[in-house]
Amino acid sequence: MARKEKLLVGKFDVIGIRVVAPGIYFTEHREIDYTYLAKLESAQELAPLHVAATLAEIKELRRLFPDTPLVGASDSAFHKTMPDVARRYALPESLVKEYELYRYGYHGLSFQSAAKKLSSLQGGIPARAVICHLGSGSSITALANGRSIDTTMGFTPLEGLPMATRSGSIDPGAVIFLAEKLGLTPRELEKKLNGESGLLGVSQLSSDIRELLKAEKKGNESAKLALDLFVYNVRKQIGAMAAALGGIDALVFTGTVGERSNIMRKRIVENLKFLKISLSPHANNHALGGVDAVISKTTARVSVHVFVADEAAEIERITNELA
Amino acid sequence: MARKEKLLVGKFDVIGIRVVAPGIYFTEHREIDYTYLAKLESAQELAPLHVAATLAEIKELRRLFPDTPLVGASDSAFHKTMPDVARRYALPESLVKEYELYRYGYHGLSFQSAAKKLSSLQGGIPARAVICHLGSGSSITALANGRSIDTTMGFTPLEGLPMATRSGSIDPGAVIFLAEKLGLTPRELEKKLNGESGLLGVSQLSSDIRELLKAEKKGNESAKLALDLFVYNVRKQIGAMAAALGGIDALVFTGTVGERSNIMRKRIVENLKFLKISLSPHANNHALGGVDAVISKTTARVSVHVFVADEAAEIERITNELA
Repeated sequence: MARKEKLLVGKFDVIGIRVVAPGIYFTEHREIDYTYLAKLESAQELAPLHVAATLAEIKELRRLFPDTPLVGASDSAFHKTMPDVARRYALPESLVKEYELYRYGYHGLSFQSAAKKLSSLQGGIPARAVICHLGSGSSITALANGRSIDTTMGFTPLEGLPMATRSGSIDPGAVIFLAEKLGLTPRELEKKLNGESGLLGVSQLSSDIRELLKAEKKGNESAKLALDLFVYNVRKQIGAMAAALGGIDALVFTGTVGERSNIMRKRIVENLKFLKISLSPHANNHALGGVDAVISKTTARVSVHVFVADEAAEIERITNELA
Repeated sequence: MARKEKLLVGKFDVIGIRVVAPGIYFTEHREIDYTYLAKLESAQELAPLHVAATLAEIKELRRLFPDTPLVGASDSAFHKTMPDVARRYALPESLVKEYELYRYGYHGLSFQSAAKKLSSLQGGIPARAVICHLGSGSSITALANGRSIDTTMGFTPLEGLPMATRSGSIDPGAVIFLAEKLGLTPRELEKKLNGESGLLGVSQLSSDIRELLKAEKKGNESAKLALDLFVYNVRKQIGAMAAALGGIDALVFTGTVGERSNIMRKRIVENLKFLKISLSPHANNHALGGVDAVISKTTARVSVHVFVADEAAEIERITNELA
């Protein structure tokens, strides 16, 4: 991961790290100073699971490199272009304003990287693109002329698709029901929905798609259900994003699963011929990671791409710009 | 409403009422006996807001007509055909099984009524149909050959679209955040998300689309945002259901808003030309309630219908079948 590469011991002019945190403040790339740390500590109180790791990492870096400037590369900044219809929840206005309860979206560094690759294609950037970042965390973004207009993750990275261990979207009524029925504190409930759900919770076996594919082959029904559930929800969100864009010209797969799993890509687009999405089996089967590829049929109206997410390059660019 | 029509004082052979309640038991139409009442009281403990009204109504009917059989017409029964990929949340298997935490879906009586009307069309029932029930509660269902394969409401009627006073789907992380930050009990939180959110919460003005349209015309920005948010989410869910179906042959509007508001219908389909959906302005503007109509352009590949929801007829049929 980008962060680990930066953790070499030595002398650096500046160190950049990815920051995943809710709040308007964190939709900007910023130098990490005392204010930033204080804000991050507050954010940790509110959404502990996703902020705690970043906070620990920053403190460790501060200890190891006390004199080196740190830059927080926002994983939400890319989504600042989202219009209100995508950014807002239908919650009471007073709550929204007081607690900054907006859809922020994440995976912004990956989507930014994909948007750049799209814009360097022959013919320029497609007007309407849907990018699927599929990994242990997964989200889908709609790009209009290269800008994010909607994304599946929300206030926190829990919303949207089912993920490795995250439930993704479920009925808010079910969240309340679980809180009441299980007598869990909000913190405990957060752990359950983030750490014990998703592919792992459904399969009772593994959070790893490769393992689940193996088990499915051997006839494991729960593994099959977990994979089917993932595929089905990705497919529906591609449809939803196409509706948000008024159609689709390009589809991108990125993230570890998006980049490497020809099987999952094939299953996801299986029902999407009505959107003029059609894969070249040969091209799809040969795109197994490490290199960008076009995997659509040459005759298909929608181009389908596999991109290697280069989040490290984005962090580096942002860090250098701010330093 | 169907229920009020039945509340005439007099002598009846049997009385039917609509039942909205989570749980596998309530996905069947059933005669209301002691077991039923006991189960409904348990369900009320779990999802009080939606069950309490039904329970009060049943008790009142029992008091007024102690000797008349009562039939509970399930508002979820229609969705029993949903496959596991739609019915399941990505929650831990043990929780799912213990608490029957499935997507049940509601508005089944309305969808059943629409499915019947679709099947009596010339040419038979369209293979892939999306039905939008838009009213004070709203949900969208995908019908494959007349059977429900997916729907936007879930375990409770809170999930899915933003509604008159309901938030619809929001980040489960935001639900947990609100519980913690506001220090609300699950019960209080449920009230907030069901009764103070949606169009009312966003507009701070009204839960009524007619009022919001008037205010929007006068330049009220919050009213415009509430309407835009509703329209945008309906449109996205039509796209998602189209992806679930692998395309769309027919689109249906029903429910008070779906049946009467030419303005909302026009706004919803505005960006859906890529699905071959196109309205005849004349036909749309003349479908203002009380009568079924076809409102698509005669040249459009997807037929668009306005149906008057006849839930009362469905309750009557179910009641007579069970009596």
